[in-house]
Formats: sequence, structure tokens, C-alpha cells
Amino acid sequence: MVGADLANLANEAALLAARRNHDKVEMADFTDSLEKILLGAPRGIVLGPEDRERTAYHESGHALVGMLTPEADPVRKVSIIPRGQALGVTLSTPDSDRVSYSTEELEARIRVSLGGRVAEEVVYGKITTGAESDLQQLTEIARQMVGRWGMSEKVGPIVILPGDGQPAPFPGTSELSPETKALIDDEVHRIVEEAHAEVTQLLTEHRDQLDGLAHALLETEALDAPAAYAAAGVPLRTAELEATVTSDPA
Amino acid sequence: MVGADLANLANEAALLAARRNHDKVEMADFTDSLEKILLGAPRGIVLGPEDRERTAYHESGHALVGMLTPEADPVRKVSIIPRGQALGVTLSTPDSDRVSYSTEELEARIRVSLGGRVAEEVVYGKITTGAESDLQQLTEIARQMVGRWGMSEKVGPIVILPGDGQPAPFPGTSELSPETKALIDDEVHRIVEEAHAEVTQLLTEHRDQLDGLAHALLETEALDAPAAYAAAGVPLRTAELEATVTSDPA
Amino acid sequence: MVGADLANLANEAALLAARRNHDKVEMADFTDSLEKILLGAPRGIVLGPEDRERTAYHESGHALVGMLTPEADPVRKVSIIPRGQALGVTLSTPDSDRVSYSTEELEARIRVSLGGRVAEEVVYGKITTGAESDLQQLTEIARQMVGRWGMSEKVGPIVILPGDGQPAPFPGTSELSPETKALIDDEVHRIVEEAHAEVTQLLTEHRDQLDGLAHALLETEALDAPAAYAAAGVPLRTAELEATVTSDPA
Amino acid sequence: MVGADLANLANEAALLAARRNHDKVEMADFTDSLEKILLGAPRGIVLGPEDRERTAYHESGHALVGMLTPEADPVRKVSIIPRGQALGVTLSTPDSDRVSYSTEELEARIRVSLGGRVAEEVVYGKITTGAESDLQQLTEIARQMVGRWGMSEKVGPIVILPGDGQPAPFPGTSELSPETKALIDDEVHRIVEEAHAEVTQLLTEHRDQLDGLAHALLETEALDAPAAYAAAGVPLRTAELEATVTSDPA
Amino acid sequence: MVGADLANLANEAALLAARRNHDKVEMADFTDSLEKILLGAPRGIVLGPEDRERTAYHESGHALVGMLTPEADPVRKVSIIPRGQALGVTLSTPDSDRVSYSTEELEARIRVSLGGRVAEEVVYGKITTGAESDLQQLTEIARQMVGRWGMSEKVGPIVILPGDGQPAPFPGTSELSPETKALIDDEVHRIVEEAHAEVTQLLTEHRDQLDGLAHALLETEALDAPAAYAAAGVPLRTAELEATVTSDPA
Amino acid sequence: MVGADLANLANEAALLAARRNHDKVEMADFTDSLEKILLGAPRGIVLGPEDRERTAYHESGHALVGMLTPEADPVRKVSIIPRGQALGVTLSTPDSDRVSYSTEELEARIRVSLGGRVAEEVVYGKITTGAESDLQQLTEIARQMVGRWGMSEKVGPIVILPGDGQPAPFPGTSELSPETKALIDDEVHRIVEEAHAEVTQLLTEHRDQLDGLAHALLETEALDAPAAYAAAGVPLRTAELEATVTSDPA
Repeated sequence: MVGADLANLANEAALLAARRNHDKVEMADFTDSLEKILLGAPRGIVLGPEDRERTAYHESGHALVGMLTPEADPVRKVSIIPRGQALGVTLSTPDSDRVSYSTEELEARIRVSLGGRVAEEVVYGKITTGAESDLQQLTEIARQMVGRWGMSEKVGPIVILPGDGQPAPFPGTSELSPETKALIDDEVHRIVEEAHAEVTQLLTEHRDQLDGLAHALLETEALDAPAAYAAAGVPLRTAELEATVTSDPA
Repeated sequence: MVGADLANLANEAALLAARRNHDKVEMADFTDSLEKILLGAPRGIVLGPEDRERTAYHESGHALVGMLTPEADPVRKVSIIPRGQALGVTLSTPDSDRVSYSTEELEARIRVSLGGRVAEEVVYGKITTGAESDLQQLTEIARQMVGRWGMSEKVGPIVILPGDGQPAPFPGTSELSPETKALIDDEVHRIVEEAHAEVTQLLTEHRDQLDGLAHALLETEALDAPAAYAAAGVPLRTAELEATVTSDPA
Repeated sequence: MVGADLANLANEAALLAARRNHDKVEMADFTDSLEKILLGAPRGIVLGPEDRERTAYHESGHALVGMLTPEADPVRKVSIIPRGQALGVTLSTPDSDRVSYSTEELEARIRVSLGGRVAEEVVYGKITTGAESDLQQLTEIARQMVGRWGMSEKVGPIVILPGDGQPAPFPGTSELSPETKALIDDEVHRIVEEAHAEVTQLLTEHRDQLDGLAHALLETEALDAPAAYAAAGVPLRTAELEATVTSDPA
Repeated sequence: MVGADLANLANEAALLAARRNHDKVEMADFTDSLEKILLGAPRGIVLGPEDRERTAYHESGHALVGMLTPEADPVRKVSIIPRGQALGVTLSTPDSDRVSYSTEELEARIRVSLGGRVAEEVVYGKITTGAESDLQQLTEIARQMVGRWGMSEKVGPIVILPGDGQPAPFPGTSELSPETKALIDDEVHRIVEEAHAEVTQLLTEHRDQLDGLAHALLETEALDAPAAYAAAGVPLRTAELEATVTSDPA
Repeated sequence: MVGADLANLANEAALLAARRNHDKVEMADFTDSLEKILLGAPRGIVLGPEDRERTAYHESGHALVGMLTPEADPVRKVSIIPRGQALGVTLSTPDSDRVSYSTEELEARIRVSLGGRVAEEVVYGKITTGAESDLQQLTEIARQMVGRWGMSEKVGPIVILPGDGQPAPFPGTSELSPETKALIDDEVHRIVEEAHAEVTQLLTEHRDQLDGLAHALLETEALDAPAAYAAAGVPLRTAELEATVTSDPA
Repeated sequence: MVGADLANLANEAALLAARRNHDKVEMADFTDSLEKILLGAPRGIVLGPEDRERTAYHESGHALVGMLTPEADPVRKVSIIPRGQALGVTLSTPDSDRVSYSTEELEARIRVSLGGRVAEEVVYGKITTGAESDLQQLTEIARQMVGRWGMSEKVGPIVILPGDGQPAPFPGTSELSPETKALIDDEVHRIVEEAHAEVTQLLTEHRDQLDGLAHALLETEALDAPAAYAAAGVPLRTAELEATVTSDPA
């Protein structure tokens, strides 16, 4: 987020607080405004009960994996109100402006992205097309880990994949050998499969908490951090606690 | 279908109802209008008796597989009146706005797409070029299952194929390894071949029903859902029943 | 042929009939007009005796294979009058507007296309560059059988090759695996080689009829269907008979 | 040669005959004009004695292979007067307008193209860059034999290489399998290597005639067909004899 | 640096000296101006304590490897003041205008580039995305060593990779064989892995010096050459000594 | 060199002779003008003593290999005055306008190009980036020998690589098989490695002469042919002798 984004967010939050007759801008005004800016206004479509439940489990999967993974960015909000292209949203933002990510933190992001799909697998034994954008995001992270950030031991600290909007990182890398391409594909596959196995085990073991969070979500449609952590039976992290404290007196 | 499409459909149906001197817009006015919007006006060409019979079996194959496959979208209408590029049409639309598809539902769509060709194989022992657009559609579904929706266990929950109008899903995936390309091709082949075997068995076992439906179609040229299910000897699903009830009093 | 083509054909045939002082437009006026529209006006070049004989055998090969292959489109006319780029022409058109082709009919078209070259092989033991456009046509049919029409059992009912003017059938198929490319090439090779073996056997066994047709062609330069079938000693099919009858009283 | 080319040639020949005070246009006026049109005016550069001798043997190699290969186009003229990019020229044109070429005639053209380089190998034991355009021409013939004219038994009567100015012969052939590419490369290599072995044997066995032709060329710079055949000790073919007779009375 | 760059640098340094009330332009005015020109003005963002410490170790890693590697360009300045996209900077410039680099000097540059990442590995046991531009730079050096500068014994003194902004070094090299591509990838991998092993050993053995430099940097944010070498306990090289002497009397 | 180049050269030489108060244009005026036209005016940069010595050995390596290789073009001038992008230059031009090159002469050019780098290897045991343009030039020669001039026995007299500014030599060669690409790469590697071994042996055996030439160059900065051959202790070839005689009386 750059300055203009922050100004926009502050503005939106102030307008929202005014519409809600708040004396001052509260934390909820900020997170609701952030959600609107990131995803667009609510879509006004009504999901059938099956789709609604599935979405609740999907978002609960994202959120619970985020809550239970120490290296993951803290969960700020979970919602099953359709916005833009999304049927629901789990908002996870870091405690402060991140300047870099470690291997463990990126693996945590991959696991959180897998959480929605794995929740559907664990609960319904089914896979749906609904996780497409999650898979797209986690594949991109895994490929950059391997090809740009030197996080695959087999590839080594070498940049072999292009960044955004570039055909190749520099002259001479546009055509990798078939062996190197296979190594990249294999390493990406390994990273994602390991994460998938771990997330499956995590959500299977914490099935009760997943149910609790999903049911709370079905009831209230949107949960702030404290409510979400409470519904999942996971203690709030310091960061969330602080954020909550800050907004409480408002 | 977005709002403008619905407005257009409602308009067409109203005009059609007026031309037919209906007191109010009936279900048949809606499905006929939908057919016209999707496929274009009738082409006015006259098929020879062989082509006409083959087309009847082709459409009956689509329709019967749709009726007998629980995960398939319900069949709304079957017709052998040539429209646009199509010699006939089997209209299958979901009960409600779908927000996602499960593996099983996509496999059902592949099977319905194969139904036309397999009916020709079962009845005539011949393959014709007439199924080209069916094959194109089912191949696209199978490739997306494997490359975008994470529905191949061997590929895993990874996005490796581009979506519509994109050269690659993101930087670094435009050049997959030969092994990964072979894995995709193999998985697509496996999915389609399995579906083909199942549809062949299904239509062979239900040959009587296929004949019944085809003959009814040859006689009347177009069948609404109740007539089509009756001709095929398949009980109407709840969804079709409701739709029928709604339009009956009109 | 669309409406405008038919109008053009009717016009040309009427003009030709007038120039020939026919009371009404005869069948020959139609086929001659069709030939002119498809291939251009006669070129006015004079072939040497060797080229002329080779051309007669080449066209007779196309025509005789067409006459002896039940699934082939009926032969309408054979000529060794050079037109446009072609030194001769064998006109084969279906009995009625075709809406699709079966595997057997496409294999018949491949065989008819091979007939010219194989006739040269059988008669002269030589191959020339003259069959280039025939080979181009039959290769295209064979590749579409394998890659678009699902007519190769090994490939299955899958679309993996692009249609006309498209780089790829849809996203994700622009880069097939080397194994799939090899499978396509192998299947195309198999289809064409099988056809080549059959056509070689056919023309070797029917060498007398080939000679008869070629000699008749060398004498008269152009043969209508009845004359061509008579010269080849092949009974006219019902379709040709009907066409002949229709034009006779004129 | 189309009509305009012929008109141009006739014009040039008439002008040349006038400049030479000929009573009528002689054969030599025609071949000299043809040479000028095909290759441009003499360049006026003076070759050193080594380059001049090497050029004489190079052109004699082309010409002698042409004279000794029955399927080759007859040799019309040999010259070591530099024109355009060429240091010398061997003019070989067919007896009449060719409408097609047989495998044997194309192999003969490859051999004639190799004649220049092989002469240098046989005489000097050296290879030079001077044969580049010959190699380019013969490779193109060999590739078309294999990939467009169905003249490789292993490839079969299939078109797999594009013609002039086209990226691919038709949809679906732009990406051949590695095996098919290797087959094409192997067949082209085989055709050219066989021709190379035969031409090497031919010029080694006919070394005396090669020397005779080269020496005559060094003396007179340009030889018409009768002089060239005489210098090489090869009897003129009927075609050349006729051409000579026709021009003699002039 | 060309003339205009030098003029710009002199100007910036003079302005800076004036703002600092220096009687004449001092060495520090020059290096500070150079830093600003190369990286942009300080960004004004405040790093958290963890990121700040990690950055200090990252820059100290670059600097200490530079100080301990004889073939490396001398270290001029180390800083953890964020500028442009960079969180810190280690300024290493050669003693004089370089006209070429030896294999050993390029390997030294690769090692210095690896120093930041390896310091993080050694100190925290973690890899982060922060070294991306370092990896990009060292991969480019390694690829050019192998593909343009003939510094891989297995590849030999051959140019097989394109330079900047070129698709291929010259005609015929745009498509290397898979084996050659694999050889390039392997050699690049070998060079970088060897450097990585050496740098890891170096920083592990000199951990005390790394700590000393990092702590000094955390305290003062920016160190000139003398202060940096002192903090790391490495004797200044002659080149740095001279530079220091020159600027001292100012 | 075409006419306009020669006119330009003559003009430059005349102006230079005038500035030097020569009565007529001398040989040195011509070679100095040629150097200026080919490389640009002197750059005015001052090399450090190490770079200067390395450059002297580099140019001496080119020159000595040229003097000792019979098939190489004669050496006209050696200089270590930086011009354009070059730190020094060894001018080698053929005795007369070349119309073609033999395999041996091209191998000689490759050896001369390698001379600079090998001299550095032999004298300093080091490889630098300074030979990049030499390597580019010799690789291009080797690739054309293999792919365009038929000088690799394994490839045969076939053109498989494009010439300047062309994507492919003709239709059907833009995509060679992996095997053929590997064959080209191997043959290029073999040619260059053989030349490298020979040049290394040559310069090791003639180390004294290399030192003599380099020292003379360090003293005088530029040597004409007679001075260079004398310093290297190599007798002038006839061609150089003649050139010298011609210019002596001036």
C-alpha cells in the first residue's frame, strides 16, 4: 500500500464511520473499508444453502490454517458475503509493512491458500473449481521460490525464471534446458504436495475447530478477528490483541 | 447469463408468446427463446433421411446420458431442427446459477458431450466428423481439470495451463518441461477415455431407451423436458418436475 | 456452396448453354461451368506427349479409385485440359450436400487423392512432383482425422490440433508433449501408408481398366461421368444414372 | 518463363544480333542474352590465376556432371566471366517447359549442383566457401523431396514441410515431433550423401574429361554447348544437336 | 561512468559540501553523492528492529566477503539507510576504470553478491526473498562467463548466448541443442554452487568479524571504508588507504 | 571494400600525407587511414601498466599466430593505441580481393582470433572478458563452416543454418531436429577446441618471439608490418615485402 492507497482507505473508513454514526473511526470501519477496496462492493447475489455452506467451510479452511500456522500473516476478518468475483474472503495482512519473506513464511502462505480447498476435501470429499484463484496464487509463490528466490536446494541461489511482465530474467535464460525445466516443475510440485499433505493433516486433526468456525460464519456471515479466533477456539496472537485493544475504546 | 441477457430473454419470450396468442408467457416460450438466442434462428435446410436419423440418435445420446447421470445438468429440451452451425441441439442448463463445479459434475459434462458420438458408434458402428465441436468442448473441460483446477492427483493442486486469452498463467510457466507436458496430455487422455468407456457401456445397456428417444425425436422434431424424459422412459427429476408444474397452468 | 455460388453457377451454365445453342441448360453445361468456376479457364498450354500421357494416367488413377471405392464421392467428370495450376482434373462431388463425413468416407477421399500418384507409380514406376497438391490435401484430411475428429483410437475422442486459422484449439494446447506430437505423426503416417498400400493393390489389379480410361482420355481429352465409367468398364452408380437421366432429355 | 520474359529475351537477342552485325538473330545471341538476363551484366572484376583456374574447374564440374547424367537438363553454356555475385556460370535448361520433375531428375539436379564443389575436392583436395549457393539450392531440393513431394519411402506420401513463404503447410503441422524432424534431417542427409559419393566417383573416373573442359574454358572463357561437349569429349545429345542445327545456318 | 556522469557527481558533491559547510569537497561528500546518484535519495521508511538487524547482517555479509576476497573490488561504503528499492547498500568500486575482468575477479563478484544471502543463512539459518536482485546479478555474471566469455572449460572459447538486447549472438545460434542448453545450465549451477560453498565457509569462519561489522552498522547506520574495515577487523588495502589519505587533509 | 570505400580511403590517406608533409602518399598513410576508418579515431584513454601490458600480449598473440600460420591473411599493422571499443588492433588483410575461403584459411582465421586470448592464457595463466568480440567472430566462422559451407564431414554438403538477417535458409529448415542441433554444436565445439590446442602449443613453443613482439609494442605503441615481423623474428612474406618495397621510395 502506498500513500494514496492509505489516504483512500482513511477516507473510506471515515465515511463509513459517519454512516454508522460512530463518534470516531473504529477498527471495524477500517477493516470493512479495506475489504471493500480490495474486493469491491458486495455483489448482492444470494447463494443456495449448499454453496453457502461450502463457502463457509472454504473460508474457514483458509482462516483456521492461518490461525494455526505461526509463520502465517494474522487473520483480520472472515466473511461469506460475495464481493466481486469472490464468494467469500479471508483477510490476512501482516502486522507491519513486510520488506521480505522467509522460506517458512512463503510456505505458510501456500498452506493458507490451500486451506480453502483442503477444507472442502476434508468435509465433503470433493474438489471444486472454486479454488482456482487460490491455486493460481500458490503456484506463483512456489515457482518464484524455486526460480527467483533461490529457495530450492537443488536449483541453488540462481535466478532462472522471469519476473512479472518480462519474457526472461536476462539474455540467455529465455531457453532453459529440458532438464532444468523438469527440475523447476518437480520442485514446485514437491513444495505444493508437501504443503497439501500438512494442511490435510492439520484440518483433519482440527475438524472440530473448523466446524465451529464455519458454523459461526454461517450464522453471522462475517467475523472480525476476535470473533473468528473465538469461534475457532484459537487464542488471539499478540498482534491481533493489540489491534483489538486499540479499536476497543472507540 | 448477466442482467442484459435476462432482459433480452424475457423480451424474446414475451414477443413469442404474443405471436402464439398465449395469454401469458409460458415455459415453452422461454425455452424456445433461449434456444434461439443461444443457437440462432432455424436454418431452413432439409436433412436427408440418413443424416436426420443420425442427428436424432446423436442428440438422443447427449440427452439420455444427461438424464441417466445424476451429476449432469438437467435436460431442458432436445431438438433436431438445424440452427446456426448445429444440426440439432440438446439444451442442458443447471437448476440454479452455478458458482462452481465439482470433479464429478465436470466428468458428467464430459460424458454428456461424448453421448452424441457414442450413440453413433453404438447404433451405426461409425464415427463421423459431426462430433467435432463436442470433442472440442470436452477436451477443454478435461485440460482445465488437469491444468487449472487441480483435479488430477498426479499433477496436484497446481495451475500450469493458461486461462482464456492468456499465453501463460504467470511468468515462468510459459515453458513447461516435456515431462509435465506429457503428464498433462496423459491425464487428459485418461479422463476422456474413462468417460468414453462408461458412456459406451451406458448407452449399450440402455439401447432401448436410446431408440425410444430417437424415434420420438424423428417424429416430433423437438421435445420439451417432460416429453423427452417420457420418450426415454426416465423419470423426471424434481427440478424438471417443478419447472414443468410452474409452466403447466399457463 | 452457398447461395451466391449457386447463383453464379446457374448464370454461367445459362450463358454456356446459350453459346452452345442449347434449347435449355443441359447437364454438361452445368458441369463445364462448375469446372471453370472451380479451376479457372483453360490455360492454353500444350503438353508434350509424355506429360500428356502421364497426366491422363494421373487423372485416370484418381477417377478409377473413386469409381471402385464405395464410400468415395461419385466421379462427375475427368479431363486433361490444363486449367489454372492444374494439368488435368477429376471432378468428384457428393450426391447431396454433406453435413458430415464418416471415417470410411474420409479414408476414401485419401485414397482418391492418392490415386493419381499411385497410377504413375504403377504405370511408370516413377514418382513426380506433380502430386504435391494431392499429397497436401490428403495429409490435411489425415491430420484432422487424428487431431480434431477423434478418429484415431490411440489419440481418442480428443481435439489436440487447431482448426483453420487458429494457433491452437484453446488455451493449453498450443504446446503438446513430444510424445503426443509423435503419436499424431505416427497415426497420420499409418493412415496414409495403409491407404497407399490399398490403392497400389487396387490399381495393380485393375490395370486394364486404368489403361482403358487413360486411353479414352488421351483420345477425347474430357469425359463426362457416363463416358468415363464406360471407358473404365465400371457400372454407373444410381446417383450418376439419375443425374444422367435428368440431363438426357435436354 | 512467362510471356513478358520471352518478349524481353527476344528483344535483348535482337539488339545483341544488331550490335554483332548478324544478318539474323543467331542461337548465340539468344543464349548470351539469356545469360545476361539471368545473371546480370559482366562484373568487370579480374580474378587472380588461382581463383580463375579454380572457377574453371568448378564450372567444369557442374557441366561435366550435367553432360554425363542422363536425367539432367542439357548443358547450354559454360562460362567463367564473373557476372553479378557469380564467378562463373553453367547454364542448364530443359528441352521444353517442364511441368513436373521425377525423383531421378531431381537427384540429377542435386548431382549437377554438387559437381562444382566435388570438382574442387577432386582436383585440389580442398573445400571452399564458393559453393555456398550450390549447397543452398541442393539442400532445398532434397528437403522438398522429403517433406513436400513424398519421395522418401520412410516419410511416405505426406506433406510435412511448408512451401515458399508459409510457416506451415496447414494447421497442425507447424510443430512436428522430434522424431519426425530427425527423420527429415536423416533422409535429406542420406539423399545428399549418396549423390556426393556418386559425383565424386564420376568426376574421379572422368578426370581427363574434366581437365579438358577446364582447360578449354581457361582458354576461351565461355563455351557454347557444342564447344563444351567437344572439349569434354562427350557426344552432344539429340536436343543439343537440334538446337545447334537450328542456329547453324544463321 | 561517462563524462556527463562525472560532471553530475562533481556537482552533487560540491552542493553537498556546501550544505555541510565544508571548506572544500571531501571524500565523504563524493561517496555520499555517488550513493545518492546510484540508488536514489533515502526513502524515509523505518524498518522494524528485526528487519533492520537482518539488513545489517546482509550488508555486512556483502562487505566482509568483499574485504576478504583479494580479487574483489574494494569496499567504499556500507549503509543500512533504505534508498530506492534497496534496504541497504554496500558500495564496491574498482580502483580505476576497469577494461576487462578475469575469471577470478568475476568469481569474486559472484561471491560478494552471495555474501548478503549467506550471512542471513549463517546468522539466522533462514533464506529470504530479500536477496532476489543479488541472485539476479550473480546469475547473469555466471551465464555470461559460460556463454559469452569462454570461461567454462567444457563449453570452450565459444560464444553461445546473446548479449544485452539481442535474441541471439548471430544467425544459427538462436536454437541451441538440448545438450548444449543443459551444459550451460550445469556450468552456471556449478560456478554458483562452488561460490556458495566457499562463501558459507568464509563467513562461518569469520563470524566474529561479521558480528562486529553488523553491530557497528546497527549503531551508526553508515560506515565509510576506514570505519567499515576497522569494525570488521580487516586491514585497509593500499587503494583504500590512498583514498583515505587523499581525503583526510580536507 | 566497394568503390566508395576506396575513394574514402584514398582521400583520408591524401589528407594524412599532407598533414605529415609527405611529398606523396606513403604506405603508412594508407594503413593509418585504413585503421582509422575501420576502428575510429584514437580514444584518448590511458590504460594502466597492467592493462597496457596485457593488451600488448593480446595483440602480439593475434599477430604472431597470423605470422606463423601460412594460410592466414598477412599481418599489416599491430597497435595498442585504444580506438573505439578496442584497446588495440592487429590489422590482417589479404593480399588481394578474396573471392572465397578454403577450410584451411578459415581455420587459420579462427586461430588468429584465438591468438589474443591464448597469449593471455600462456603468459598470465588467466582468462579475461577482453576476448569477447574475438570469440564472437570465431564462433560465427565455425558455425558457418558447419552449417552453411559444408565443411563438416558429419553434416555433409548441406545448408542448415541461416545466413545474415534470415530466420532460416529456406522453408522447412527453421526447426531442425534435436539431433541435428546437437551435431552442429558438437562440430563447432570440435573445430574451436582443435584450434585452441594448436594455438596454445604454437604460442608456448614461440614464447620468446611473443615476448619480443609484445615488448616492442610496449615501447613503440604501433608497429608496421616490417617492424612487427622483425620484432617477432619472423621473415616477411613475399606479399609484405612487395608492399614494403612499393612504399619505400616514397
